[in-house]
Parts: sequence; structure tokens; C-alpha cells
Amino acid sequence: MDRRKMLGLAGAGAIGAAAAGVAGATLIDGATHPAQAADAGAAIPFYGEHQAGIVTPAQDRLHFVAFDVITDKKAELLDLLEKWTMAAARMTSGRDAGSIGAVNGAQEAAPDDTGEAIGLPPSGLTLTIGFGPTLFRTAEGKDRFGIADRRPAALADLPRFAKDALKPEISGGDICIQACAHDPQVAVHAVRNLARIGFGVVSVRWTQLGFGRTSSTSRGQVTARNLFGFKDGTANLKAEDTQLLKEQLWVQPGDGAEWMTGGSYVVTRKIRMLIETWDRTSLGEQEAIIGRTKGEGAPHGGKAEFDLPRFDAKGADGEPLIAADAHVRLSHPDANDGARLLRRGYNFVDGSDGLGRLDAGLFFIAYQRDPRRQFVPVQTRLARQDTLNEYIRHVSSGLFACPPGIRAADDYWGRALFA
Amino acid sequence: MDRRKMLGLAGAGAIGAAAAGVAGATLIDGATHPAQAADAGAAIPFYGEHQAGIVTPAQDRLHFVAFDVITDKKAELLDLLEKWTMAAARMTSGRDAGSIGAVNGAQEAAPDDTGEAIGLPPSGLTLTIGFGPTLFRTAEGKDRFGIADRRPAALADLPRFAKDALKPEISGGDICIQACAHDPQVAVHAVRNLARIGFGVVSVRWTQLGFGRTSSTSRGQVTARNLFGFKDGTANLKAEDTQLLKEQLWVQPGDGAEWMTGGSYVVTRKIRMLIETWDRTSLGEQEAIIGRTKGEGAPHGGKAEFDLPRFDAKGADGEPLIAADAHVRLSHPDANDGARLLRRGYNFVDGSDGLGRLDAGLFFIAYQRDPRRQFVPVQTRLARQDTLNEYIRHVSSGLFACPPGIRAADDYWGRALFA
Ligand code: HEM
Ligand code: HEM
Repeated sequence: MDRRKMLGLAGAGAIGAAAAGVAGATLIDGATHPAQAADAGAAIPFYGEHQAGIVTPAQDRLHFVAFDVITDKKAELLDLLEKWTMAAARMTSGRDAGSIGAVNGAQEAAPDDTGEAIGLPPSGLTLTIGFGPTLFRTAEGKDRFGIADRRPAALADLPRFAKDALKPEISGGDICIQACAHDPQVAVHAVRNLARIGFGVVSVRWTQLGFGRTSSTSRGQVTARNLFGFKDGTANLKAEDTQLLKEQLWVQPGDGAEWMTGGSYVVTRKIRMLIETWDRTSLGEQEAIIGRTKGEGAPHGGKAEFDLPRFDAKGADGEPLIAADAHVRLSHPDANDGARLLRRGYNFVDGSDGLGRLDAGLFFIAYQRDPRRQFVPVQTRLARQDTLNEYIRHVSSGLFACPPGIRAADDYWGRALFA
Repeated sequence: MDRRKMLGLAGAGAIGAAAAGVAGATLIDGATHPAQAADAGAAIPFYGEHQAGIVTPAQDRLHFVAFDVITDKKAELLDLLEKWTMAAARMTSGRDAGSIGAVNGAQEAAPDDTGEAIGLPPSGLTLTIGFGPTLFRTAEGKDRFGIADRRPAALADLPRFAKDALKPEISGGDICIQACAHDPQVAVHAVRNLARIGFGVVSVRWTQLGFGRTSSTSRGQVTARNLFGFKDGTANLKAEDTQLLKEQLWVQPGDGAEWMTGGSYVVTRKIRMLIETWDRTSLGEQEAIIGRTKGEGAPHGGKAEFDLPRFDAKGADGEPLIAADAHVRLSHPDANDGARLLRRGYNFVDGSDGLGRLDAGLFFIAYQRDPRRQFVPVQTRLARQDTLNEYIRHVSSGLFACPPGIRAADDYWGRALFA
């Protein structure tokens, strides 16, 4: 039996059905497949209680950018944030970045849109902003914009984790923008136009392209696979978990820093995967390291992907079915005082590493209510004990406070922070 | 009027229609749109007179890889080429890279597929192989495999062009494989598995990811846009130009090197675009540099995209409507002894350049019957005269002989070359 072929045919059949808008178009288990969502061209509302791009069913492509603010003038920064908000509202609805557009302006003026998205539908574009620790106080200790006292306690610098191999030039940043869309040209167009609008006020510090969304963030999505070939996102926090989202994702009134209420904190980690080493590891070893089967994604001892893991189950040999140092055991809420994450990562390939190998891996993105109680303890444990560490290396790190959504057309990103 | 919005809505409507397989689903001009082709999940036949991936309607995503051969043993290389051909035939039809697959093997063995494409349809994957000059004789002059005398005259090293800023570590290579697909995960999976199979025989020299296919290679496709915001591919050689393809694309009997009959030569150029500078250039200047309008893509003096350029037409001021140094004038067959190219490039963004700018541009790919009479004269002229040069920089270069297609299941890539 050729598993991939079978699924491939099922998938191909589903494309027509899903795209024709047939309700409940099914693929294997009734969920929509990456790259073939019914609404891949549609717009996602920009305005709302929370920023889009967090619980929004993860789109297929990512362009993430971190900016350094290169002005010390608060007025210039606020002006940019206002312009950005306007441009983001326009672009997410499929319009040009500015009101004149790419081709309708005067011949003598530079267009206020760069044009490469002309004719492309909104493609599910979301733009999500976050503010990094250095916006509140620079690395040199300077409070450039008079907001040092508004820095949320939850935005505490991440500790150094065991085995971290971080490159400062692709870590940190004063402001991040996560652009997700079903078409990379649309995500790239958005980031490029925001950078263009920010000329002289911000400078691109680092950016990351990603594809093949690992992790689904909604029960309506098929779980995609990461570059180790495993389903990634099975036990993720999902859009439908209303009560858990309150407890674990959205900043609540009284959490401190009132301007963050309804917002969330994002941690990014660029994780290089040593795929050549992994590819020479036996199937049994791979499955033991993760704690789930590779084909179905079921926890050891279970049968189906969404069966709950039974960490106390033992085999005939008396050994736990899910190994003591398996990734899913160490990262599970049971091992971390109930802490959960909304993971929203993407696969990446950045060319080759000059040593004859692909420079590939997982651009890990996780949203949460308080990194001090969620990402930090989980990653502390993983960095010390996870067998996966032999096959991965964390090479960049980012931490940003993502404010709540924009609810009125006269509001703009960061207004409450700077008010 | 908001042009993008209008087109966006048209596009969104077309997705459903196109994907439902409605014949003649229209978008603007009745052609299929990037990322929304009716058959985005389908397989493209691997076997045929010519290799797939040349006149195949350009898919949306690219993963291009150049390998160095690290063995001197001909038998090892031939063994690999045979294994690769088998794996390529499997993967392009949506199957695992090997017969055991990602999850059906023994627990003690490493799987013969890496698994990240499980469940994904074939997604229009094509794999196209090419042999570089250094396969015939190494840079040190060594004829490792006894094929130095089989090197086609048309595979002559490219000259150094004016303003070239080539990086050797991302140029050249003994063997290239171009993977194109509608889903990047499928293209990446293919290259990664070929690299895995080649372990110990080849080593990855460089790779390039691309998106948003600039240039359409079929009249059935909407012309996509490059990162300067212009339609790219309008005047391309297309799959339907049967007579021109014979004259300009496919190697003919008697061209020399019989093993190449039915094949084609590919030139790759990674062209960094200085998009920040371009974005500050006026619309009129941008249009004068290209020689076409930005919105419609019509040649100056014409009205519609596919109107033929009239290079002798003059404006009221007596100046030519298409400037003397416009890109389309300099690259047009009229200026180059009738030479044409089948362009098949992709946009790229490789992060930022460490100077606050996006590292973005065009990964130019062009197929042709003889680079000495096609790419070389055109690029010689462009390198000297094209105003576009102020906004671009060629940073890598590749040249490969792509043999004809595989017609029988017992044939394999390169068999005729080594026979
Ligand atoms: C390249 C690195 C990583 C790989 C390949 C990886 C892979 C996986 C896989 C295959 C699963 C099981 C399926 C699922 O529930 O999504 C999983 C679960 C999980 N991972 Fe990772 N992971 C990586 C890094 C991380 C990091 C850095 C964290 C957080 C610090 C993390 C946190 C989690 C959590 C919380 C779960 C769910 C556990 C549960 O509740 O069952 N992972 N991961
Ligand atoms: C970043 C660099 C480049 C950009 C932005 C660019 C852009 C364009 C555009 C917008 C067109 C008009 C639309 C079309 O017919 O496709 C065009 C045409 C063309 N380009 Fe380029 N191009 C670039 C590099 C090159 C290079 C390196 C070559 C070959 C050496 C080349 C060869 C051609 C040819 C042959 C045409 C068609 C001319 C005609 O017959 O009308 N281009 N290019």
C-alpha cells in the first residue's frame, strides 16, 4: 500500500470540492488541508477585539520581520504607527498600501504601493504587530520614548537556555510584524510596503520567510507536518478552546499593563534542524524521541491522532510507552504546571549552510498570556532533557508584546501604549 | 477607482470557478491565475520526449539546488543517477521517494522517505536535471568521469559580463535540479530527499527558494509580477510557440553533442534588486526604464499588454516612445539577431542584508538552444546599456546542459551522456 498516493488522491479530490465552496468538503477527516482552504483568496477582518493572525486558522505562508527604530523622536514613531495601521487595514482587505496606489498616481511621483500584488486577492493576509523589550528601554538603558515604566512585567527578557546558540543579528528587535497569507507574494508585498513606509524611522533588523504552517490553530484544519516528517500542532491550543484561550492566551484585566488587555505575548525561536542526521535515524528512534507515531501521529499506546496521551501506560517490559524524555511528555501541560502555548510556527529553508547541507528548520512562534509561566518553564525543561536536542539548534530568539486589536478606524497600533 | 480591489474581487470569484474545474473559468482575461490553477494538486507526467519543468506552465514555487559531485568513481555517480531517476518518477506522481516509504518500514531502519509530504497531492511537481561544465572537467582540469570529450560546445563557460558581482559559493555546480511545484513543501521535500539519497556521492553546493513565478510559459496563464511591480513574462517564449521552440529552445539533431538532442541549456542568474531605491523612483521613470506601463504592461505607444512594441514610434517631441535604453528594447529579438529565451524565473526574499534592507530580487532562469547565441549576446548588451542596472546586481550565475526527457522506465538521467 502506498500511503502517500492514497492520501494524495483523496487530497486532489478535495481541492475541487473545497474550493467550490461545498460545505464540509472532506479530506481524510473532514478538515481543510494546507494550501487548499476553501477561502484561500478571501480577506480576514483587520478590526476586532484581538489582533488577527493569532487564533486565525494558520495560513500557509509567513513573512516575519523585526525592525529597529532608528529615530529618537516619539512624534515620528507615532506618525509611522498611524500610517502603518492605515496601510495594514488597506492591504489586509486586498487594496493597495496607499490611497493613490501602484499605478494611478502622477508620473512624477513614486507610487504609494509597489505593485507586485496588483491583481492578487487578499489571500487571507493578516498583519500582527508586537513591541519588543528594547522599544521600552534600549540595550544601553535609554528610555527614548518615555515608556520605560509601561513595560509589562510579563515582557521580561528571556533567560539563556541550555544549548542556546543565538545569533544576535537575527534576534530581538524593537517592533515585529508577522505577515501571514496563503500566497507568499501577498505576505512579502505587505512587509515590503510597511518597510517602505517606515523609511528613515525604522530599519529592517531581520526577516524570516516560512511555509507549510506547522501548527494548525483551529480544529477545522488538517495537521500539517514539520521537516522531521511528523504532524505538528495536534495538541496545540486552538481557536475553539474559548475557556483555555482566556486562561492561557489573552492578557486579562488586572494582569498588569492595562494597555495589553486583550493582547498576547509572542516568542519566536528560529530552530535549525539537522535534517541529514535525523534522516539517518531509524523510524523507531524517531518515534520514541517525539512520543508519537510518524504516520498517524498517535501518542504511543493510543491509536488515533487525537487520542489523549497516557503518560503512565507501560509496555510488557515495564518501560513507559511514552519515553521519560519524549518531547511530548516534557512539553505537555502535566509536566509544566498546566502551561500551554498557542504554537503558530512555519518550516523554513534558507539555502545551504556552506557545508553541503540544507539550512532548514522550524521557525517556532508561540503566543501566550505570560511567557514567564508558559514558554520559559517549558523551554527550560526541553533545553535540559529533550532528546530532540541532538537534532536541533536554537539560533535566534524574539520576544514581543502584541497589543489588543484595533476596534475603531481612528485608533492605531500602539496608541494606548503611548497615551 | 481602486484597481487592486477590483482585480482582487475578480480573482476571488475565479478561485471557486477554476478549482471546481469549470471549463474556461475566467479571471480578467480568461487565463489562470498564479496560485489558483484548476489543477494545482494534479501530477505532471515525468516521462516524455523533453524533460518536464521547461515548457510546463510555470508552477508557483521553486526550489533549485546545485550539487558538487564528491566522488571520483563513475560507478557511484551512475548508481546515484539511476536511483534519482526512480525517486523523481515516484515523487512527481505524488508517491514517497522510495518503495518502503516514510512510515511503512521496519522500526530499526531509517525510512526511505522523510515524510513531510505525506498527505499532500503531487502539486504539479516537476524535477529537471542539468549537467554543469565542471562535471565534464573539474576547475582543476581533471576529467574525472572520462566525459570531457562529450561536453557540448554550446556549454561554453559564460564570459564575465560588465558589472557582474558574482559570489562563487552560490554559483556553478556539477549537477543542478530544478524542483517546481504549486506547494513549497512538496518542492522542498523532493530536493531534500534527492540530497538524502545522494549522501556521500554529492554535496549541496547552493540552493534557492522562489515564489510567484515570473514568467508565464504558457498563453493559458495570467502574467505574474516581479518585485519591481511589473508584469514579467509578457513577451516570453511560450509552450504554444511550436515552431519557435524548435528554433530557439530544443537542441536539434546535428547541433553537436547528440546526447543533448531534445534537451535544452539553462542559465540561472540570481539578481538582487535594490528595491528600496526602486520604490523611491517615480512611476514615469520606472515605466521608461522598462519600456512598458506598470498597470497594464503595454509597450509605450500601445494600449494592451500583448500589443506588439513599435520601436520606431516617436512622440510629439520627436523622441522614441520606447526609450533607446529601455529594457524591452535592448532585450528584444530585433536587437539580438532574433535570439529569444524561455524565461522561467522566480521572485526571492532571503531575509535582510544586515544593512536594514530586504535581501530580495529575481532568481532568473532561462532555457535555450544555444547560450552562445541567446543568453550571452542579450546579457552582454543589457550589462552595458540597460538603465535597470542602477537597480539590480547579478550575484550568482549557473549554466547547465539539461538532457532530453526519459522515455522508458529502464532509462535514467544521464545514461546517454555516459554511454
Ligand atoms: C524543531 C523543534 C521542534 C519540533 C520538531 C517539535 C515537534 C513536535 C511534535 C511532532 C509534537 C507532537 C504533535 C503536537 O502536539 O503538535 C510537538 C508537541 C509539542 N511541542 Fe514541540 N517541537 C519542537 C520545538 C518545541 C519548542 C521549542 C517548544 C516550546 C518551548 C515546543 C512545545 C511543544 C508543546 C507544548 C507540544 C504539545 C505537547 C502536548 O501537550 O502533547 N516544541 N512538538
Ligand atoms: C531583475 C532583473 C530583470 C527585471 C526586473 C526584468 C524585467 C522585465 C520586464 C518587466 C519585461 C517586460 C515584460 C516581458 O516581456 O516579460 C522584461 C522583458 C524581457 N527581459 Fe527582462 N528583466 C530582468 C532581467 C533580464 C535578464 C538578465 C535578461 C536576459 C539576459 C532579460 C531578458 C528579457 C527579455 C528577452 C525580455 C522580452 C523582451 C521582448 O521581446 O519584448 N531580462 N524583463
